[in-house]
Amino acid sequence: MSLSYLRHLRTSSPPIIHAASLRTGVWRKVPTYLRSLSSATLADIDPSRLEVIRTSKPKEIPPSSSLKFGHTFTDHMLTIPWTVEAGWGVPQIRPYGPLELEPSSTVLHYAQTIFEGMKAYQDPNGRVTLFRPDMNMKRMNTSAYRIALPTFDGDALLELIKKLIRIDKSWIPREPGHSLYVRPTLIGNQRAIGVAPPNEALLFVILSPVGPYYPNGFKPVSLYGTTEYVRASPGGTGAFKLGVNYAPGILPQKHAAGQGYDQNLWLHGPEHYLTEVGTMNMFVVFNKDGGYELVTPPLDGMILPGVTRDSVLTLAREHASGVKTIPGLPRNITVSERPVTMKEVKEASKSGRLAELFGAGTAAVISPVDKIGYLGEDVHIPTGSDGMGPISRPIWTELVGRQTGAIPSDWSVVVE
Amino acid sequence: MSLSYLRHLRTSSPPIIHAASLRTGVWRKVPTYLRSLSSATLADIDPSRLEVIRTSKPKEIPPSSSLKFGHTFTDHMLTIPWTVEAGWGVPQIRPYGPLELEPSSTVLHYAQTIFEGMKAYQDPNGRVTLFRPDMNMKRMNTSAYRIALPTFDGDALLELIKKLIRIDKSWIPREPGHSLYVRPTLIGNQRAIGVAPPNEALLFVILSPVGPYYPNGFKPVSLYGTTEYVRASPGGTGAFKLGVNYAPGILPQKHAAGQGYDQNLWLHGPEHYLTEVGTMNMFVVFNKDGGYELVTPPLDGMILPGVTRDSVLTLAREHASGVKTIPGLPRNITVSERPVTMKEVKEASKSGRLAELFGAGTAAVISPVDKIGYLGEDVHIPTGSDGMGPISRPIWTELVGRQTGAIPSDWSVVVE
Repeated sequence: MSLSYLRHLRTSSPPIIHAASLRTGVWRKVPTYLRSLSSATLADIDPSRLEVIRTSKPKEIPPSSSLKFGHTFTDHMLTIPWTVEAGWGVPQIRPYGPLELEPSSTVLHYAQTIFEGMKAYQDPNGRVTLFRPDMNMKRMNTSAYRIALPTFDGDALLELIKKLIRIDKSWIPREPGHSLYVRPTLIGNQRAIGVAPPNEALLFVILSPVGPYYPNGFKPVSLYGTTEYVRASPGGTGAFKLGVNYAPGILPQKHAAGQGYDQNLWLHGPEHYLTEVGTMNMFVVFNKDGGYELVTPPLDGMILPGVTRDSVLTLAREHASGVKTIPGLPRNITVSERPVTMKEVKEASKSGRLAELFGAGTAAVISPVDKIGYLGEDVHIPTGSDGMGPISRPIWTELVGRQTGAIPSDWSVVVE
Repeated sequence: MSLSYLRHLRTSSPPIIHAASLRTGVWRKVPTYLRSLSSATLADIDPSRLEVIRTSKPKEIPPSSSLKFGHTFTDHMLTIPWTVEAGWGVPQIRPYGPLELEPSSTVLHYAQTIFEGMKAYQDPNGRVTLFRPDMNMKRMNTSAYRIALPTFDGDALLELIKKLIRIDKSWIPREPGHSLYVRPTLIGNQRAIGVAPPNEALLFVILSPVGPYYPNGFKPVSLYGTTEYVRASPGGTGAFKLGVNYAPGILPQKHAAGQGYDQNLWLHGPEHYLTEVGTMNMFVVFNKDGGYELVTPPLDGMILPGVTRDSVLTLAREHASGVKTIPGLPRNITVSERPVTMKEVKEASKSGRLAELFGAGTAAVISPVDKIGYLGEDVHIPTGSDGMGPISRPIWTELVGRQTGAIPSDWSVVVE
């Protein structure tokens, strides 16, 4: 895959939603025949119609120390049905429990599902916040559009999510590094098997209390440079948070584990471009001109426009330009969104020019890497005694400070 | 994407299951760490454990003339649960009705689903047959393996499917061109959100009576040569019947419709290789040396190994070699599994060397094409007055004869 071909796809594909749309709302500026997929003329999500049915059997809240990521769910969930005739229906907050789905439902056959992941934090004073939830709402709309599911008013959904969190507030662990993982999901559930836009859909939101990703301090992960499988391709769906990007990665992950590595480093094309790490975005840091270059692959249609990715880039750029100061972060830092190949990383590792390499995502926040198994040999990645590096350490501290509200910022949105 | 790169992927990827495995069972010959995904040491599907719960409220069987593909389902369905601890559990034939799925189920978030499609036919004497169901059972196992779902004994599942069909036999329409569409589906339904092999899965089979795809004779379709989106890529999942290959195609289909065309012709790489048509395999026929060359793209990891595709190839090869004679099929025919580009098709159309182009799949059997919108102009495809061409016409007649049992063959498997 030549870079010029990637560029061609990047510039010649009007119907593909680019990441810029997350900020500009470009996804609404699409041709009429495509816009017919959206529910613009029908009822949108309306928080004033909310019905709340509280559980009569609250579950016992488990001790925070026993939490395993994504295994525990709170007492309630939010559901909002949609039909092609009426648009979005009555939102309900109701007891957490099974969904009844016809065996013919689109999602079960054709994988018509999208989701988001975000975290709510509770500080010692009981104040609850979400981190940049507007980004998730915008991305969920671009995802919906891409897979022919109905779009919606992100502010309205966010208002309902806040109500759900308030109702299950007692489930939010207050221990450091703990949070409430919020999982909005939207599925097509037409009762007919046929590959077409569905006439029914269901949006639901569930909540899961989670502990820190690294309970005992950072532990760098090892990566297997995957060339046998791809996570995404030009013209594919890698830039959208669709279910289809996830289950196909399980077998490659098992393959990496079988070789003795923790996760996949998804390499693309004959040039072996670094793209993503497992289910995270990724960054490489090179020593450059007595300072550092922080590099992440560009949003070329194969890379998920991650909220943590954007936050790392924004923090580093603001610091580099002098707009803000992040304690401990070197001032001499260049921030690049550019392709990076394994050849460059391998050579930098050998010459001592490689400073660090890390994954970035909502679940782990920052995930440092200490080696990459590549074509039969291990490429060494430097890590500090705390497992982190010169850029990731201060960025992580700032990011987590802003997420938990310990460092005030407009990225932290008050729920209660 | 260069052809050499495709070849590289084809030859350098041991863990990728190639189509040959459909016949040889190669999918079992995988490294141990990958084999742990299969349920080899646990209980397999066991027809002797079947429980049958008959409906107390049989539905009224609708007139065949009212059938719309995939919208009507019979009175019963088959379900078989699986757990990582016990393997395959008790198969049940029970009244058709909703499945209860936890909102955290893997399939709803990460698209862990695979399916098959096949047809049962009933002749005027009430004899019921399936067409090459062993191919579907084998492919379903390769699909399961690829997406980290449990594999199973295909013969055992087929035995249970036959029982289900016998119970709902009265639903099989007997009119010409009608059949009972059989849809086996396997989903991951672990009750935890995390991208990993599931600890629970559910296999279910539903039945849908269907009418002929072309009730009023063949109507050739027009295709839009899609270069903005891809259906599959090297290292991706295109060679497996996974749900993830389907929902992402809906938006491109809307895009094609918006340009005035019926379906997508999926073109791949800068060379614009023809790969598939909508959700079907495809064939091109060129005039060659006073005879014909029947061409279909090779199983290079991007092409679904379709049962209809294999049947067309087998019939044409047997006829060409003189093993069998298909009435009306020209003897001078070369059968090629080779890449074909839009450049070749366009030049052949202009020079009169193009004989026909058609899609092939279970739903439509053969779907002739009369034009391709390509880079702003229409490439004309010849079609006969009946909508078909010199190769597709006799092949279709033979294929449908064998499917319905009118032409005896070992491809037709008696159910009752």
